[in-house]
Amino acid sequence: MTTTQVTLVQIDNYGPWTVTPEPRREADLQTLQSRLYADISQFVGNRGGYVFFTRFDNMIAITNGLDLEDHALLQESVGNRYPVTLSLGVSTNANPVQALADATGHVQDAGSAQDKNRRECLEGRVIDGDERREDDIQIAHFDVVNATGQYTDELNAFDTFIEIEQGYAELMRHMRYSHDSLSFFVGGDNIIVVCPDLTADDYEEAIYHVQEAVDVDLQVGVGRGTSAHDAGFAAKHALETCRADGTRVELEWE
Amino acid sequence: MTTTQVTLVQIDNYGPWTVTPEPRREADLQTLQSRLYADISQFVGNRGGYVFFTRFDNMIAITNGLDLEDHALLQESVGNRYPVTLSLGVSTNANPVQALADATGHVQDAGSAQDKNRRECLEGRVIDGDERREDDIQIAHFDVVNATGQYTDELNAFDTFIEIEQGYAELMRHMRYSHDSLSFFVGGDNIIVVCPDLTADDYEEAIYHVQEAVDVDLQVGVGRGTSAHDAGFAAKHALETCRADGTRVELEWE
Amino acid sequence: MTTTQVTLVQIDNYGPWTVTPEPRREADLQTLQSRLYADISQFVGNRGGYVFFTRFDNMIAITNGLDLEDHALLQESVGNRYPVTLSLGVSTNANPVQALADATGHVQDAGSAQDKNRRECLEGRVIDGDERREDDIQIAHFDVVNATGQYTDELNAFDTFIEIEQGYAELMRHMRYSHDSLSFFVGGDNIIVVCPDLTADDYEEAIYHVQEAVDVDLQVGVGRGTSAHDAGFAAKHALETCRADGTRVELEWE
Amino acid sequence: MTTTQVTLVQIDNYGPWTVTPEPRREADLQTLQSRLYADISQFVGNRGGYVFFTRFDNMIAITNGLDLEDHALLQESVGNRYPVTLSLGVSTNANPVQALADATGHVQDAGSAQDKNRRECLEGRVIDGDERREDDIQIAHFDVVNATGQYTDELNAFDTFIEIEQGYAELMRHMRYSHDSLSFFVGGDNIIVVCPDLTADDYEEAIYHVQEAVDVDLQVGVGRGTSAHDAGFAAKHALETCRADGTRVELEWE
Repeated sequence: MTTTQVTLVQIDNYGPWTVTPEPRREADLQTLQSRLYADISQFVGNRGGYVFFTRFDNMIAITNGLDLEDHALLQESVGNRYPVTLSLGVSTNANPVQALADATGHVQDAGSAQDKNRRECLEGRVIDGDERREDDIQIAHFDVVNATGQYTDELNAFDTFIEIEQGYAELMRHMRYSHDSLSFFVGGDNIIVVCPDLTADDYEEAIYHVQEAVDVDLQVGVGRGTSAHDAGFAAKHALETCRADGTRVELEWE
Repeated sequence: MTTTQVTLVQIDNYGPWTVTPEPRREADLQTLQSRLYADISQFVGNRGGYVFFTRFDNMIAITNGLDLEDHALLQESVGNRYPVTLSLGVSTNANPVQALADATGHVQDAGSAQDKNRRECLEGRVIDGDERREDDIQIAHFDVVNATGQYTDELNAFDTFIEIEQGYAELMRHMRYSHDSLSFFVGGDNIIVVCPDLTADDYEEAIYHVQEAVDVDLQVGVGRGTSAHDAGFAAKHALETCRADGTRVELEWE
Repeated sequence: MTTTQVTLVQIDNYGPWTVTPEPRREADLQTLQSRLYADISQFVGNRGGYVFFTRFDNMIAITNGLDLEDHALLQESVGNRYPVTLSLGVSTNANPVQALADATGHVQDAGSAQDKNRRECLEGRVIDGDERREDDIQIAHFDVVNATGQYTDELNAFDTFIEIEQGYAELMRHMRYSHDSLSFFVGGDNIIVVCPDLTADDYEEAIYHVQEAVDVDLQVGVGRGTSAHDAGFAAKHALETCRADGTRVELEWE
Repeated sequence: MTTTQVTLVQIDNYGPWTVTPEPRREADLQTLQSRLYADISQFVGNRGGYVFFTRFDNMIAITNGLDLEDHALLQESVGNRYPVTLSLGVSTNANPVQALADATGHVQDAGSAQDKNRRECLEGRVIDGDERREDDIQIAHFDVVNATGQYTDELNAFDTFIEIEQGYAELMRHMRYSHDSLSFFVGGDNIIVVCPDLTADDYEEAIYHVQEAVDVDLQVGVGRGTSAHDAGFAAKHALETCRADGTRVELEWE
């Protein structure tokens, strides 16, 4: 059974900061947001986790393998090097959406995202090191079948982007409401989804749903592991099997 | 009348590179993509342009103010510092979507995104320095009315994200098909749209459309300028007026 | 007794790479070198270690707390994100210079710094996790007495720089030959030295030597710890005591 | 005749910031300093200039090609993305040391480096765009003859470093006092020197001096240009001639 540890990373008082005393250059905000995300990706990724940029001022991470001391160190390091600070909420649950909801609750309880007095809250509980198992995390790595041939080399770059976005918007809603899963676009034509214990039928059904709803053809490789990296890496390999064999759903452990 | 110079930035042969000889750690790919985007944002932004991360392996930029030498320098600098290279296509048109389509065509004509022999193509035409005008660019900066109060402090972080994504997906399609505009989510609850000459009615209609379709309430500040930065900065100020006055559409020049 | 684990980080085939097929823009080389160093500083620093930029193509790190798997991960991550790769040699000794010499030997044995076939060598031994002690590392943090008042606000910036450099060049030689220590300029007027078990007399003597040789007045705070961070942080606090009390040598544990 | 535009880049109130409210993690300070330097290197370098890390809290740049608006933009961008701010002083003179002294004076006149009220000063004058000439800048690129064979592959990495440092310390003093030149170690075994109009004899004499004083063998390629990049790139090519032909001094324009 999955045991997903989710951390919500929220920049403190970011909205007001971006316009005080005056609005800041957009290109600088984009640079700041992207580099902050990249740093968190290295910190979390080097410990076996995954972090997704999500909305940039709010980022969602799968942090099995990081304890509260690690979270505190991340906060301290960012506070030393950026003009903003982070609040972190952590929780664990078999259901990824529930874990994320509880993590969010910790941050919301500490104060509003625009509360100028709320700084660097750190609340929650991490998974016990002795209780980690090989099937704690299930990750599904979707991509669009032959995106390059169908879209990238054929349509203008924005129309290709619209197709990918519509596919993502549809999959994200379906996976969240039907399967308690968290879906994240990660660039190119790739979507990584953090799932509870789903079956091949569940993935076939999700692919069919997206095809019917927005006419975007997905394939998926699924992996399991103790950490997001282990599960995700297994999922990438399974996806290579889809590409090689022309199949739509490959579970790495079957 | 708008004269939008659009550049398509496409990483050469990226898909294959990410899995050769083996799939690479996802956290490292995210870091690479984000930092490459951040660098391009500084380069383009320091010359008055805007670049949007879009799909990360394909990025769209508004580059009025950058000539072909600037584009070549960006290519050279990235080639010196990253394990990947960039191909660039540039074009100018009163219609942003058309400019982007032509820019895409330049890159597609040079070769497939996964053609291992296509490296660092640079094709296209830039706006003549003497012909730049105050109304060359029109930028609309949308955000969600009271996102913090309605969503961020109330829902779990993924459900807030779903709401913003659905709003974005709806606006991006509407603005592209009804108004030849290019829309980009830029973090938080913000969407920046690159438009031809639109009117207050066009923006009111777009906001109404999104409200009806997905029940997300948007407001918008619109600005014009010689460069994306000038237009975008004026748009940010107009958006502050929406926030202060409770209005939904503010055009900075009216 | 000190037990210093030293890692030599050497970029593979860097000299030839910088001029092949043509010399590369100097500003890009500086950016690449600095960002690579910054990434290694985060990776090593987040595990309690210190890395010094040294010559940028060769960097010296104090890595108590990092095992060989950590070293391999650093290599893999850099290989995924940069156009160059790293070779690493690790060794441990009570004598920091000896540890560094053995670490260097591991890399030299694998091949020349400009051997185009040597890539990502990883050799050596790390300190046993169970054998780590509170006095494994001794770090001395020197700075120039009243550098701002004497130099920065008085001389031109290059002449101030010359004074600091002469002080550093003198201290580095003295500490290496008289005390088997490794000295690194870390910015401003600060020099961090990795020492074996030295006494207050040894530090007084070093300060006197530099004063006599090049007329630069130093003060020093010294700390001990299980990791470079622990020892270095204690040294910083001891240095604050020098600043507050006007003393020249402060040992944090006395 | 040379006309060197020099900018002093000084972080405001940095010393106090690094220890307020408590000393900050050294690894984070190193990361911050290096990435700030890298950003300035891109900004200045993309406009044809060079910036040298120098002491990291004080950096020296050759900025022919950048006007005061460019300097102001650099300040603004850094202020938007870092927890520190920059003060800048600019001046131009045939004598690089004099230009640097005047640039320093502008910053010192605005306030102490540790004056908590001095923020983002920008003072000075830039070279007139119409008056730029092909011989405005003279750059000499020194390196150690066969550093890899003599040192890197033979000695331990710190002893190699000592040799390079002693060579640099000697050259920097000689070039400053005998030839009004500014010398900067840039990594590996490379030293870049910003000179007034010097001759081949001057360079032969400098090399002889260093050899006699500290037994380090240097060779040098010298170039001239309108910008630091143009002069420096020509110098790199001249240095390749030294390597190919076994000569010690090569002037690109002879």
